[in-house]
Amino acid sequence: MRLTVLGCYAATPRTLTNPTAQILEINNHIVLIDCGEGTQVELRRHKVKFSRINHIFISHLHGDHFFGLPGFISTMRLLGREKALHIHGPKGIKEAIILLLKLGDSWTNYPLLFHELSSKESELIFEDNKITVTTIPLDHRIYTNGYLFREKVGKRKLNIEAAEDYGIDKAYFNNIKNGKSITLDNGEVISNSKLTFDPPKPKSYAFCSDTVFDETLASRIKDVDVLYHESTFLESEADLATKTKHSTAQQAAKIAKEANVKTLVLGHYSTRYKSIALFKEEAALIFPNVLLADDGKTFDF
Amino acid sequence: MRLTVLGCYAATPRTLTNPTAQILEINNHIVLIDCGEGTQVELRRHKVKFSRINHIFISHLHGDHFFGLPGFISTMRLLGREKALHIHGPKGIKEAIILLLKLGDSWTNYPLLFHELSSKESELIFEDNKITVTTIPLDHRIYTNGYLFREKVGKRKLNIEAAEDYGIDKAYFNNIKNGKSITLDNGEVISNSKLTFDPPKPKSYAFCSDTVFDETLASRIKDVDVLYHESTFLESEADLATKTKHSTAQQAAKIAKEANVKTLVLGHYSTRYKSIALFKEEAALIFPNVLLADDGKTFDF
Repeated sequence: MRLTVLGCYAATPRTLTNPTAQILEINNHIVLIDCGEGTQVELRRHKVKFSRINHIFISHLHGDHFFGLPGFISTMRLLGREKALHIHGPKGIKEAIILLLKLGDSWTNYPLLFHELSSKESELIFEDNKITVTTIPLDHRIYTNGYLFREKVGKRKLNIEAAEDYGIDKAYFNNIKNGKSITLDNGEVISNSKLTFDPPKPKSYAFCSDTVFDETLASRIKDVDVLYHESTFLESEADLATKTKHSTAQQAAKIAKEANVKTLVLGHYSTRYKSIALFKEEAALIFPNVLLADDGKTFDF
Repeated sequence: MRLTVLGCYAATPRTLTNPTAQILEINNHIVLIDCGEGTQVELRRHKVKFSRINHIFISHLHGDHFFGLPGFISTMRLLGREKALHIHGPKGIKEAIILLLKLGDSWTNYPLLFHELSSKESELIFEDNKITVTTIPLDHRIYTNGYLFREKVGKRKLNIEAAEDYGIDKAYFNNIKNGKSITLDNGEVISNSKLTFDPPKPKSYAFCSDTVFDETLASRIKDVDVLYHESTFLESEADLATKTKHSTAQQAAKIAKEANVKTLVLGHYSTRYKSIALFKEEAALIFPNVLLADDGKTFDF
């Protein structure tokens, strides 16, 4: 599982920092999470092939999380995309995009499929044989969802050495991979677990931005491997965080601890701070395994 | 008169090139012409004070000319703008911006005033004591206007030396600046032209992008000082230019010649070409005084 942070600063694009956008590679899917202005340029900079992105998940309709989407959609048309593109986001996103395409008489040549969200309960919104995606309702100034991405348990891996020791013919290997046990010529049954290795433990990633500090969040992201939790402010601006429905680094750490996640990634920093190192220091007092997102940074989990 | 090119490439933002946006400084006005994605970052890069921009002129509603506008408007709110901001552009622009602000519940704290255009005839759309702005209807795939900016003739400048030679008291200097002649104590009338210098010749700038080659354009921009004319293609792609309602460098030069402009500035280059130098070579065969726009370039006229 690999996370590439295209942008992780709050509010406005600046010369050296970008608003929110992330690429998550998970079990052979490549999804785009949020799409602030300039995202398509950051994708080019990081050599992400636009055509590999089939699903985009938008948390909420503040500009710093979706003003790059109309341009991204238009560019895919100019690049000759033919595959469908799925847009998951709050109700209203379809009306906005359709209006912009209509005004420019720039309809896409590829199917543009909207999956609009309006529920305040967590929903399973995508599932295939590799991953599931569920919403994480968040409490922000406008309707907002985080997203929880979970790998499905993969197939068990064939232990070739063990199979050969039992003298099992290659013709049976596919059966073994599919979980079957094998009966030898002498009648002995070799259980599948003796012929296979456990599959890799499925990974999970929770994206939670933007949100006020909300302790009930922890129960919804229990034991995830990686939590990206916004930390717009430091604790010295806790009042401002509450007022604007954002969180502090310390609050993000409390959620991470309570949810028993493995790794906390902080981001969505207010640009008022000269250095982001303080965010890590503050969070680490409460939750030790904390990483700082930064524009252009890639994390392998 | 100073032109700063923030972006002048066609179609999509890329790592090293930006879509259309320009800052024109003319007679103490600073206006923004078009606003492709990323414009606000380019403004920061060139240290243009956002607050000095009171008028934005949008040529048409293709994304590469206006997808940066919603973010620019939002950022002005975050920066605490209070002054009114005037948006001039095709009908529909208001609906689009208002919808985006509504979805984000991000109404501006400053007055946002839309001046929507739908006429196919040239119109005077702005006038004060310094400049006039008229539309230049263009023929593109969707409703499009160029804009013609003209300085007004300034006041004559006081010739202090001449006034002192005639023994005229300082108390009369304002009258002289305002065009009055002076009667000396001996009854001699000194005409204003003897006491003043001619004001600087007013300058003019015509922005014409995007447009197909249209010879009737020349009559509408006759004798302007500076013509920015799109040249998406070279003559080798003339068919493609006609089909997509764009122009070639040679066609832009023909318009410049026919209109008798002083200087032609080329831009809106397709990104298919490795170097933009060929655009200048091609145009210069027909019209010698040609300049190449490029991102970040500033021209003083």
